[in-house]
Amino acid sequence: MENSSADAQTNTQQALAASPPEIGTPFDRAMMQRCIELARRALGRTTPNPLVGSVIVQNGEIVGEGFHPFAGQPHAEIFALRAAGEKARGATIYVNLEPCNHYGRTPPCSEALVAAGVTKVVVGMVDPNPLVAGGGVARLRAAGIEVVVGVEEAACRQLNEAFIYRILHKRPLGILKYAMTLDGKIATISGHSTWVTGQEARAQVHQLRAACDAVIVGGNTVRLDNPFLTSHHSDTHNPLRVVMSRTLNLPLDAHLWQTNDAPTLVLTEVGALPDFQDQLVKKKVEVVELTPLTPAKVMEYLYNRQLSSVLWECGGTLAARAIADGAVQKVLAFIAPKIVGGKVAPSPVGDLGLATMTEALTLERVTWRQLGPDYVVEGYLPLKG
Amino acid sequence: MENSSADAQTNTQQALAASPPEIGTPFDRAMMQRCIELARRALGRTTPNPLVGSVIVQNGEIVGEGFHPFAGQPHAEIFALRAAGEKARGATIYVNLEPCNHYGRTPPCSEALVAAGVTKVVVGMVDPNPLVAGGGVARLRAAGIEVVVGVEEAACRQLNEAFIYRILHKRPLGILKYAMTLDGKIATISGHSTWVTGQEARAQVHQLRAACDAVIVGGNTVRLDNPFLTSHHSDTHNPLRVVMSRTLNLPLDAHLWQTNDAPTLVLTEVGALPDFQDQLVKKKVEVVELTPLTPAKVMEYLYNRQLSSVLWECGGTLAARAIADGAVQKVLAFIAPKIVGGKVAPSPVGDLGLATMTEALTLERVTWRQLGPDYVVEGYLPLKG
Repeated sequence: MENSSADAQTNTQQALAASPPEIGTPFDRAMMQRCIELARRALGRTTPNPLVGSVIVQNGEIVGEGFHPFAGQPHAEIFALRAAGEKARGATIYVNLEPCNHYGRTPPCSEALVAAGVTKVVVGMVDPNPLVAGGGVARLRAAGIEVVVGVEEAACRQLNEAFIYRILHKRPLGILKYAMTLDGKIATISGHSTWVTGQEARAQVHQLRAACDAVIVGGNTVRLDNPFLTSHHSDTHNPLRVVMSRTLNLPLDAHLWQTNDAPTLVLTEVGALPDFQDQLVKKKVEVVELTPLTPAKVMEYLYNRQLSSVLWECGGTLAARAIADGAVQKVLAFIAPKIVGGKVAPSPVGDLGLATMTEALTLERVTWRQLGPDYVVEGYLPLKG
Repeated sequence: MENSSADAQTNTQQALAASPPEIGTPFDRAMMQRCIELARRALGRTTPNPLVGSVIVQNGEIVGEGFHPFAGQPHAEIFALRAAGEKARGATIYVNLEPCNHYGRTPPCSEALVAAGVTKVVVGMVDPNPLVAGGGVARLRAAGIEVVVGVEEAACRQLNEAFIYRILHKRPLGILKYAMTLDGKIATISGHSTWVTGQEARAQVHQLRAACDAVIVGGNTVRLDNPFLTSHHSDTHNPLRVVMSRTLNLPLDAHLWQTNDAPTLVLTEVGALPDFQDQLVKKKVEVVELTPLTPAKVMEYLYNRQLSSVLWECGGTLAARAIADGAVQKVLAFIAPKIVGGKVAPSPVGDLGLATMTEALTLERVTWRQLGPDYVVEGYLPLKG
């Protein structure tokens, strides 16, 4: 989800193409970037809500800021209005997402902005739900407030890509992440894989986990790698750690069963090893039976649990099933410039049933960055149908 | 060998490190780049000699240029002196490699420069052979000529990296090239591989072949891919096409047996299928028996045939044997941002016997470039011993 890093070089194929004209002044764009920065303080914590930040400016000075901390709490604009107090009157408010215009768990922000007397609202992007998009903007304009829409829109869309995907497709955004050598191996012939990439790339993965709502592995990864799957940082969010295992042929001792740092959910099929299920539950591991246990079914279940972004950190077999099942939309491939060899050493994606190279799934909107000695390639699978 | 391309973005880890102070003026560096440009006109044709270009400048204007076209012909400086004629007197001569100071197939260039009355010689790099390095420079200085050494030295070394490697190690430089998907596959489960990468990357491979003295594949590649292995361009050099096959279990019809465009050499073991050997020879394919037929033995043989650069375009099994045998110094990995999957789909490097990820061979001097939709990662294997 992290799309930039101070010490990394970014190269976007899209950026090389002609860009649409920028909306807003350089000051407007700087303020919208500040909104994004504020919004990111709640990274990984707002699902099913979006990440939103807001800044109020009076006479060229910031007089109030806020962000949405988590679902059930007030929206970003409300925090910013509270911070600005009387200085909001006649001011300009910046917000990366169109202010809401409906009564949810909180009253509509559009009404609060009208009541506070702001004279201008600068919006990053309209509501991604086509059924409600533009409602907030219309309400504000009807009240005589000047509204500018689309400032730093690409960055605002990137920030909330999982939220947007969730709204439009009624499923969490699935992200497949793997780390491989330059000869395409995610482990050696003996299964050893610590570490493929260096510190910078691994820190990036930790940040990625902090931004995601869940991270999924299969039983094989638990048995072979015994991972933690946390963001390895005390004050960042940890995702829900999900293990998919039909058989529950899993070790009794595993880092994932230590649930003090982060919650763990084991998904299995109805009736699998009831005694082992009991032992997991005693360790405060949640166990849910889903039959058939497919990636699509898991994504449906996690959607219903209000999750927006799911990180697949599994081996090649489960990765291939997830791709085939439409449970992966985005791919993050970390590549270490080293050669390890191995005819039977595992590679990142198992059988997809593609016989010719022309059938390969070509990624879209591809970017690559350097991370210390390693590289990361990011792209999106073509949407099905 | 090609280290830059107008439409490609280059990112060199080395370039990010502190660079040594530049030697020479901006004009000197521009003239040295011109030498390199001239030298490249003979790309792939000079072995066992280096690529050398030369420029003579009088009062800020180029009055003569030349390059070494192939072994046996005069050196670059001589062509430049001929072009400059009387204008060489009092002039500055630029040359990317130290002028020779010994009688080979041609008389020493140092004497010709003294005789022509040049007053300054600007050299890209000294002779890579430590036993003769500096001899030409010393002779010139002894004659009262001003000599500057090291202008654009990195670019000059890059231009002749194969020649330098050959001189220092008495073996050709081995370059392993492969094209793989973002999930590390060089072909699908059925062996289909046309095409992994797009036009730009493939054009780059053709240029690479034009710069190399030989390109090697194994019998499997001949059987599966039936490649041409040419530079696909009428006026560029074609490498010697080499097939390594112990058994000679090869098709009677293959593009490689059409030797009008480029010569083909089949290396096999003593006594393999004499009848088949006869049929190849009738098609003007050269057949040589080498026992045991190992990559190291092949490189020794090609060194003795005066070759400087050898491109391994083979499958994973032979690639691994070549790496293990010390026959690969440089790796060029073309990566297409697409996913094809396949648990048994072939990957670029077969068994190296490395059981843990910590034993992986970490590439040095790594660069990463974009080529159309694809990427190429270039690096050097650590030197053994």
